[in-house]
Amino acid sequence: MEDWHETFDVVVIGSGFAGLAAAIEARESGASVIVLDKMKAPGGNSVISDGGIAAAGTALQKKYGFDDSPELMYEDMMKAGMGLNYPELVREVAERSNEIFQWSIDYLGVEYMDRVDHFGGHSVHRCYTAANRTGATIINRQVEKAKEIGVEIRLGVCLRSFVLDPEGNVAGVCMLDGYDYRDPTRGSDLFIKANRAVILATGGFGSDIPFRTSQDPRLTERIDTTNKPFATAEALKETLRIGATPVHLSHIQLGPWASPDEKGFGVGPVFSDYVVFLYGVVVDPATGKRFINELSDRKTLSDALLKIGHPCIGIADSRAVDSQGWDLGPGLKKGVIKKFDRIEDLAAAYGVPADELKATVERYNSYVEDGTDREFGREVLPDASPIVQPPYFGMRLWPKVHFTMGGVQINIRAQVINLDQEPVKGLFAAGEVTGGVHGACRLGSCAITECLVFGRIAGRNAAGESPVDSLKAPT
Amino acid sequence: MEDWHETFDVVVIGSGFAGLAAAIEARESGASVIVLDKMKAPGGNSVISDGGIAAAGTALQKKYGFDDSPELMYEDMMKAGMGLNYPELVREVAERSNEIFQWSIDYLGVEYMDRVDHFGGHSVHRCYTAANRTGATIINRQVEKAKEIGVEIRLGVCLRSFVLDPEGNVAGVCMLDGYDYRDPTRGSDLFIKANRAVILATGGFGSDIPFRTSQDPRLTERIDTTNKPFATAEALKETLRIGATPVHLSHIQLGPWASPDEKGFGVGPVFSDYVVFLYGVVVDPATGKRFINELSDRKTLSDALLKIGHPCIGIADSRAVDSQGWDLGPGLKKGVIKKFDRIEDLAAAYGVPADELKATVERYNSYVEDGTDREFGREVLPDASPIVQPPYFGMRLWPKVHFTMGGVQINIRAQVINLDQEPVKGLFAAGEVTGGVHGACRLGSCAITECLVFGRIAGRNAAGESPVDSLKAPT
Repeated sequence: MEDWHETFDVVVIGSGFAGLAAAIEARESGASVIVLDKMKAPGGNSVISDGGIAAAGTALQKKYGFDDSPELMYEDMMKAGMGLNYPELVREVAERSNEIFQWSIDYLGVEYMDRVDHFGGHSVHRCYTAANRTGATIINRQVEKAKEIGVEIRLGVCLRSFVLDPEGNVAGVCMLDGYDYRDPTRGSDLFIKANRAVILATGGFGSDIPFRTSQDPRLTERIDTTNKPFATAEALKETLRIGATPVHLSHIQLGPWASPDEKGFGVGPVFSDYVVFLYGVVVDPATGKRFINELSDRKTLSDALLKIGHPCIGIADSRAVDSQGWDLGPGLKKGVIKKFDRIEDLAAAYGVPADELKATVERYNSYVEDGTDREFGREVLPDASPIVQPPYFGMRLWPKVHFTMGGVQINIRAQVINLDQEPVKGLFAAGEVTGGVHGACRLGSCAITECLVFGRIAGRNAAGESPVDSLKAPT
Repeated sequence: MEDWHETFDVVVIGSGFAGLAAAIEARESGASVIVLDKMKAPGGNSVISDGGIAAAGTALQKKYGFDDSPELMYEDMMKAGMGLNYPELVREVAERSNEIFQWSIDYLGVEYMDRVDHFGGHSVHRCYTAANRTGATIINRQVEKAKEIGVEIRLGVCLRSFVLDPEGNVAGVCMLDGYDYRDPTRGSDLFIKANRAVILATGGFGSDIPFRTSQDPRLTERIDTTNKPFATAEALKETLRIGATPVHLSHIQLGPWASPDEKGFGVGPVFSDYVVFLYGVVVDPATGKRFINELSDRKTLSDALLKIGHPCIGIADSRAVDSQGWDLGPGLKKGVIKKFDRIEDLAAAYGVPADELKATVERYNSYVEDGTDREFGREVLPDASPIVQPPYFGMRLWPKVHFTMGGVQINIRAQVINLDQEPVKGLFAAGEVTGGVHGACRLGSCAITECLVFGRIAGRNAAGESPVDSLKAPT
């Protein structure tokens, strides 16, 4: 075999929600554990998540009087996933969601805001938000806990390849030590042996333009992403090279609420997603006309924008903005959102034919008054009002890649499954690098739940001499 | 290297439309060529195709006065594919469709029916049907021509693995000689060297339950297929194992017009697809109620049936049947379609609550009279009539897997593309084993066009010492 430089029982690749949950669980199960991350700081893309986590049947739901059940959460996730989800994985996430949420509070010490939200696609209020509205709140607690119990976290080491034993089982990894993503030719080989197993938790590939374009040719460099630039596919590709089954790779979630005038998730979506889509209009600047029911789901809206082929304009008036109470200050300051006294001024600023735009707004206003959108069948919300109250707000809209539903196939033990539908011995995976949990479309706030549930399952099973039946015992 | 048993310039795996087109073109380009097929007869799944081929700008269209263009065909295919298609591959198919159709007549000697049809999803009449309404008409001409020009066709040999040279290029294949799909443990290794290239043309995986279920978990053994039982994924999986990029594997086309009371495509669809969906109703036997706009596209209808979870009942009256002029004789004889004097009898036969069913039919009839379907927004066709004329016809409906849109990635030279987005040297592919041409959904009759176009491109390029720019020269 190889000349190993180091040996651990369990080797975890990736230090986001899933990787750290796996590492903690493996260590708590008695294994020696190292977490390897290619970046210079731990947490991966998880640190820029908004920290929203879904769970069914929680104490917080009971406190606020919301009825919920794992069965209902399962159904919501399956519906969003258009039936492509792996039912047994979805069930695992839904049934363990309350346990994992409580674990994050009791064991990790994560603090959440004292509220329960109702995110799109969920049947009930079941979404919680980590303090400071960021995934970093959870990651910080995970890092602390991991270090406290003796998990080593090593940074700046990137997966180069898996090392297989003569039977084809994963025996360890070859890492590139001293990795710098701006110059990936640097660094030296570091061979680390895994006595028990390797856990893949390397996240999605939203920033990997060549790979994502091979799966959805529309997602060229013209489409930005809400992800960090290092959300790339090299570890996923290595896993495919050793025969893992690819699942749902072409199902890539786009955010239609994004602005091309800022990087990443940005400050614009609070206007587009919470005001425009509910109480405003979206027009094609080339025609000044609407082209879609603005209350459609993310996928429908994003597909419609891509079909138009250039950024479109979201518009709402100040009555709508004021009624929702969101602070547009940061967006206005950044120039992502603009404010105008007259529709004509807005039209001029965005290069929209003014007469057409005024006619569109008048037509839309008549639908609001009649209570029915005769053009696109959009629901007129009870508190909707015509767009008549200056100042008027505008924002350019162009989708960004937000989440990659696909990845390697796993079973409910988080074992990676090969092309012959058998587990790859010595290899587990969890989180966005896996496919199947979300099917064709992820429901907002279910990703952190998935990462923590399957991270822990992967850690528990990887640490065992033989696979155990997932997380059955309460912990 | 290996001890090669035999050597050819070009080795083609698969003897369907694509494989034979590739073999013929490679031979015409001067290469020595062998075609290998695992079955005991040539033609693969192509022989049970209905022989429909789409082409834009043909002499037959001109004869019947239909205006068309490759650009319009391109747009139709992109629209059906929901934008996931590789634009450059679609353009190649559309632009070469007339040339390839004419080639099949002039060079192969294929006879077509003297008609141009308008299949669903196409903007114009552009679909032609091979004589005897079967793909076997084309396959027979291809086999004759291939033999005539010196292509060897060898049967009962199944791909076991690719043989790579030290640089990782495909140097040849290891075949299982004496293959029998009912007992795949039999047979012995046969190493065949490819001086120039191997061409993969092994078709789709519609009959491979483990593999298709990994991509769409709904498609268990409860779902039949219109494909032959040997339409399995072993060659596709071998190609993924050597690092080919998987494309769109989870996009699997189902036929909603199929009956669970017969195998394969069967004789029922002529009733369901051409009468019921246009002029009848589909009801859930558990409720006696409609649940979908029956004129929806294939995917929407199939998804709705799968969501119901059990076979549903398609119903039409004899006025609708007579007006369409299709012969239901074979379906009635086989018991796939049944005839009843009264709606009550039909309800009893299929276990539908009779009162509910009668109410559903009456409600539907009122929509026909009003010209608007107030429940599901289905278009009321100009020649629609209420369901009142006995006898009444019924048929059980349950989707079948029909076509697998996904496969390995290729470029416009038909070179297989690896995970780093570079061509795999020595390996070409064409037909259903590739992904990208049809995106999320294949338009009916475009598969044969694709197979012939990319089969010829693969053959031409595989035969060349260096890749040439596809089929640019008229032939």
